[in-house]
Amino acid sequence: MSMRVGVVGYGYWGPNLVRNVASQRAMILAMVADGKEERRQKVREAYPHLSVVADGEELVTNPLLDAVIIATPVATHYPLAKLALEHGKHVLVEKPLCISSEQARDLIALANKVGKTLMVDHTFLFSPPVTAIHKILGSGNLGELTYYDSTRINLGLFQSDVNVLWDLAPHDLAIMDYLIGEQPVAVEASGFAHFHPERLDIAYMTLHFASRKMAHFNLSWMSPTKVRRVILGGSRQMLVWDDLQQAEKIKIYNSGVEFMNDDQRYELTPGYRIGDIYSPQVGQKEALAGVMDHFVQVSRGQTPSLMDGEAALRVILILEEAQQKLMAEQTRLSRLYRGNHP
Amino acid sequence: MSMRVGVVGYGYWGPNLVRNVASQRAMILAMVADGKEERRQKVREAYPHLSVVADGEELVTNPLLDAVIIATPVATHYPLAKLALEHGKHVLVEKPLCISSEQARDLIALANKVGKTLMVDHTFLFSPPVTAIHKILGSGNLGELTYYDSTRINLGLFQSDVNVLWDLAPHDLAIMDYLIGEQPVAVEASGFAHFHPERLDIAYMTLHFASRKMAHFNLSWMSPTKVRRVILGGSRQMLVWDDLQQAEKIKIYNSGVEFMNDDQRYELTPGYRIGDIYSPQVGQKEALAGVMDHFVQVSRGQTPSLMDGEAALRVILILEEAQQKLMAEQTRLSRLYRGNHP
Amino acid sequence: MSMRVGVVGYGYWGPNLVRNVASQRAMILAMVADGKEERRQKVREAYPHLSVVADGEELVTNPLLDAVIIATPVATHYPLAKLALEHGKHVLVEKPLCISSEQARDLIALANKVGKTLMVDHTFLFSPPVTAIHKILGSGNLGELTYYDSTRINLGLFQSDVNVLWDLAPHDLAIMDYLIGEQPVAVEASGFAHFHPERLDIAYMTLHFASRKMAHFNLSWMSPTKVRRVILGGSRQMLVWDDLQQAEKIKIYNSGVEFMNDDQRYELTPGYRIGDIYSPQVGQKEALAGVMDHFVQVSRGQTPSLMDGEAALRVILILEEAQQKLMAEQTRLSRLYRGNHP
Amino acid sequence: MSMRVGVVGYGYWGPNLVRNVASQRAMILAMVADGKEERRQKVREAYPHLSVVADGEELVTNPLLDAVIIATPVATHYPLAKLALEHGKHVLVEKPLCISSEQARDLIALANKVGKTLMVDHTFLFSPPVTAIHKILGSGNLGELTYYDSTRINLGLFQSDVNVLWDLAPHDLAIMDYLIGEQPVAVEASGFAHFHPERLDIAYMTLHFASRKMAHFNLSWMSPTKVRRVILGGSRQMLVWDDLQQAEKIKIYNSGVEFMNDDQRYELTPGYRIGDIYSPQVGQKEALAGVMDHFVQVSRGQTPSLMDGEAALRVILILEEAQQKLMAEQTRLSRLYRGNHP
Repeated sequence: MSMRVGVVGYGYWGPNLVRNVASQRAMILAMVADGKEERRQKVREAYPHLSVVADGEELVTNPLLDAVIIATPVATHYPLAKLALEHGKHVLVEKPLCISSEQARDLIALANKVGKTLMVDHTFLFSPPVTAIHKILGSGNLGELTYYDSTRINLGLFQSDVNVLWDLAPHDLAIMDYLIGEQPVAVEASGFAHFHPERLDIAYMTLHFASRKMAHFNLSWMSPTKVRRVILGGSRQMLVWDDLQQAEKIKIYNSGVEFMNDDQRYELTPGYRIGDIYSPQVGQKEALAGVMDHFVQVSRGQTPSLMDGEAALRVILILEEAQQKLMAEQTRLSRLYRGNHP
Repeated sequence: MSMRVGVVGYGYWGPNLVRNVASQRAMILAMVADGKEERRQKVREAYPHLSVVADGEELVTNPLLDAVIIATPVATHYPLAKLALEHGKHVLVEKPLCISSEQARDLIALANKVGKTLMVDHTFLFSPPVTAIHKILGSGNLGELTYYDSTRINLGLFQSDVNVLWDLAPHDLAIMDYLIGEQPVAVEASGFAHFHPERLDIAYMTLHFASRKMAHFNLSWMSPTKVRRVILGGSRQMLVWDDLQQAEKIKIYNSGVEFMNDDQRYELTPGYRIGDIYSPQVGQKEALAGVMDHFVQVSRGQTPSLMDGEAALRVILILEEAQQKLMAEQTRLSRLYRGNHP
Repeated sequence: MSMRVGVVGYGYWGPNLVRNVASQRAMILAMVADGKEERRQKVREAYPHLSVVADGEELVTNPLLDAVIIATPVATHYPLAKLALEHGKHVLVEKPLCISSEQARDLIALANKVGKTLMVDHTFLFSPPVTAIHKILGSGNLGELTYYDSTRINLGLFQSDVNVLWDLAPHDLAIMDYLIGEQPVAVEASGFAHFHPERLDIAYMTLHFASRKMAHFNLSWMSPTKVRRVILGGSRQMLVWDDLQQAEKIKIYNSGVEFMNDDQRYELTPGYRIGDIYSPQVGQKEALAGVMDHFVQVSRGQTPSLMDGEAALRVILILEEAQQKLMAEQTRLSRLYRGNHP
Repeated sequence: MSMRVGVVGYGYWGPNLVRNVASQRAMILAMVADGKEERRQKVREAYPHLSVVADGEELVTNPLLDAVIIATPVATHYPLAKLALEHGKHVLVEKPLCISSEQARDLIALANKVGKTLMVDHTFLFSPPVTAIHKILGSGNLGELTYYDSTRINLGLFQSDVNVLWDLAPHDLAIMDYLIGEQPVAVEASGFAHFHPERLDIAYMTLHFASRKMAHFNLSWMSPTKVRRVILGGSRQMLVWDDLQQAEKIKIYNSGVEFMNDDQRYELTPGYRIGDIYSPQVGQKEALAGVMDHFVQVSRGQTPSLMDGEAALRVILILEEAQQKLMAEQTRLSRLYRGNHP
């Protein structure tokens, strides 16, 4: 029997969610809520006869719904998810799940208590490249993972409610958490704000792991050139995922490092590399459709969740620590900046 | 009257130096020294009748020479440069000038005392792209510079005598020093070693400036993919220098950031950018030839030096502070790593 | 008062047409026809309550419609367009308009007789890059146009009803016709068929113009790598349109040719080029939306048509001549191939 | 015992030849000839004590030489090679070997008569990518070869003595001859001249083979963008050689074509491709060094020649036929061009 689903929030991501609910066979798109009339009008045009309301609380408490998807501004995730769980709904929330680990723990406990699904939309976990990389890592061909270097920079995608760290890093931290399955023991971060000190638009984050791995993230809303690249260092092979490539998103390098004395450096040329390069085929499936399937299966108890409250919590714990480091840095720097006396 | 020049060290970079001395009209290639017989043999094959010796001290003290160029392992730069200055030679030293700010200050004082030229080979300052960027920044078109993001990563160029920071960062710090002309007020660094803890092969460095600028450097000997990219953020325009591009090394983006509400994010597509892109022609001149001309002119007092001891010192001061942060980090991490008890 | 529009054919391109009709304010999506039930089902799912029929003739003769759009297999374009015009509809036909110049002339005459709009969907004429190039050529900055070199190759997009020439070349010929506005005086063509001699999957076409221009087209369904590139040679500047680029689809080269003697060829390096490169911003507008607007305006007599029957005829005349050359070549070759005796 | 070698012509390619002769252990660089004093001066600077003369005939007839290398303007290849063979020298000639098949046959007969080596410098046959492709084709993995599509275009490398066909095509025809080992049964060509009708700077050439293969060549001195790409179609796999790539010059595509009906075309996305991509490592060896080794071994009768007179003849026969087609086309076009009456 199909799951009756309501979606709260028809802004940037909402339409994609609604479209995927509508096309998911095990789901019935039953209701959409958004506070803005022009957005509700868009919903009506696309889905005549669908019940459309203004009030998110009205939706998440509606007894006709089995599940709700929350795609509202981040600050409202927690109260809406809480209310939905209290009313016995399965809940899927846009990333980040909420704005603090305390809220996350609260929602996890509540979900367990009411026995409903709490899931965060870490969409990338169902993107074909991540699925392929996860499989490659599982094969062990890369050897022991040594470092994770991620760059997610481009221009102008300013968020209205969060800084660049909370906007972009959840993607990368969710992916990394899925791929390496280890929580860091040390978190460092530096950032820069072109406009308001409290609205960082460039952030660099470094993580260290007890297994001696290292991870680094270059996050920016202010880069004129767009880069979406992850480099995975392994003891036997290395992998590069360039998400902007159309035909070769993933490349595996049969390459290690060679120790050379100065003389050997003579021979080096720009094309220098060791071993062959292999680019596995990656499918074209829409990640969000995979999330919807997963949400159904998890809610039916058919499979454990890849993106449950605990996964969301692990991401938020890193974001919190990085945010503290960024704030501490801003305080230190404020004393070092010129022309800053009262 | 021409300058009689001797070159110490015929390893990785030495042959390029020797070749450029030989082709510099105001220089006479008078002598080469290297401790290894097979290298001396290479010199003799390429330059029959050139005086070739084994002992660097013999060269730098040779009364027939007006100037010496030192391209030996980093640890020997200081004693050889000191000896050369004491014997009244103009001195050009490979980067980094020496291994400590104390040594650098010592050499600067000595050069001033004897009234000879002390110059460090910051080759990139004469590379056509850097010359072009310096001119572009001078024009003020970019507006106020806000950030400097540098990536210099590739595979396997392990140095025998220094870590990745001291091997790669001098290039970038010398370039940055030349382009923005400001010394940082805060230096942070993180690193990773695949092999020996004291031989870092990946390093990330973050600098902050009193003018509120920020700079970040991604340095690696362990990346399967080669990247040589600098992004310069400006208040009016942004610039990207991709040194691996053959025809378009420099691109200037007439782009700022646009504030959008969630609805506007609808329209965004992968091709999204603001304004046009312009790629100025960049020449093909060999940078090292420019360094040689500069060395002659500076030694003749015809022009102030772009790469004097002070410039070298500014670079070394940043390297020293970054090195301290890296060592402190390694100490912190050693307690957090698994399986680390005696 | 809005135009009531029906669309015949809901195959590959039909859904895009229907979606754009639905979102065009001056149009009312009144009816869709397709012979296949599963496609009709798709229409009903996307547009509940829309009138959906199986028979194209029923649609194009329906008195309630002001205009019809024909997106059926090429062979049926002519009879359906003819019938629609006879019933007083404005007609927009997918490219190619029909399969012979005779049919094209017939439709042009009929459209003139009944005083209705006959338009062919040369979609690319409203794509932002073509609009931008047309403007650039209009500015005269390129000087006199000398050559047009087009490559449109990729893998596996086999058409069920036409060969690669009739599938791909109409795009390029329509674009060229719009950009240079001159009909060739000589047409040559060569082709190759991997599977059936009469189903060419690779074709090369060369055109010469009385103004001494030359054009060449590389068309393939059998290339492992995808290329969509047009090079426009001019006496002062040259232009490259790479439609697969996300951010820099158009580049203008301030470059001419330099005469060199052998000695000068010494200096040439891979990065060699003359002058700067400029990449104008290109918008993101969907071309098909522009076609719909144009169809409305032309049908209302508000603007002359960029893609009328005459434009379609000019394209078909070239296709016909190229097809003849291809058939003649196949005949010649059949005698030269090995193992070809009965 | 070493081969005493003289080189005639120190223009564009000569210095590379001389350098490789000098570094080839089985060769002794004995003499260089060039008619221009400034070039002879360059030789003396690079090789003090080497015998340098002005007259090529003096060199090729010099009894002290075992072999001569001819790198003079194309028109002089034949008389100099003839004279050298008549004086019992092994001869290596720059491509093209000479300007007619008649001359080529004459030289082949003479070489056989005197029992000396006649070799043409088809350098690319020893370039690492061609060596790798030859090996890949030998493995049979690509299946039956179906087409060969070559693009060699860039800006401004005007030759003083030949047109673009005779300048660029010999490279590609020599490579193709080596890789597919079959002579075409039909040759077509079209060209364009920006400056003088008899100096074509753009040429397109199409070849057909009795085995039903097809080959096409896009050759230009007038392209603002540089392309060096060969696509090899096979019945099982396809191969792309992009010589401008630094790290991935060769890519093998596990891809065939898929027949689709219109509906399936829905799913197609820009990243669409079938199968994986594999990029084998390609070495960095200088091709010309391989040519020198080969010249020595062939002259010593140790190995058959990959680039003998017959190979040169096969290339010239194609060039001759293409040249005839180009001239016939120019004649046809001259009547069609505007403003062409006396």
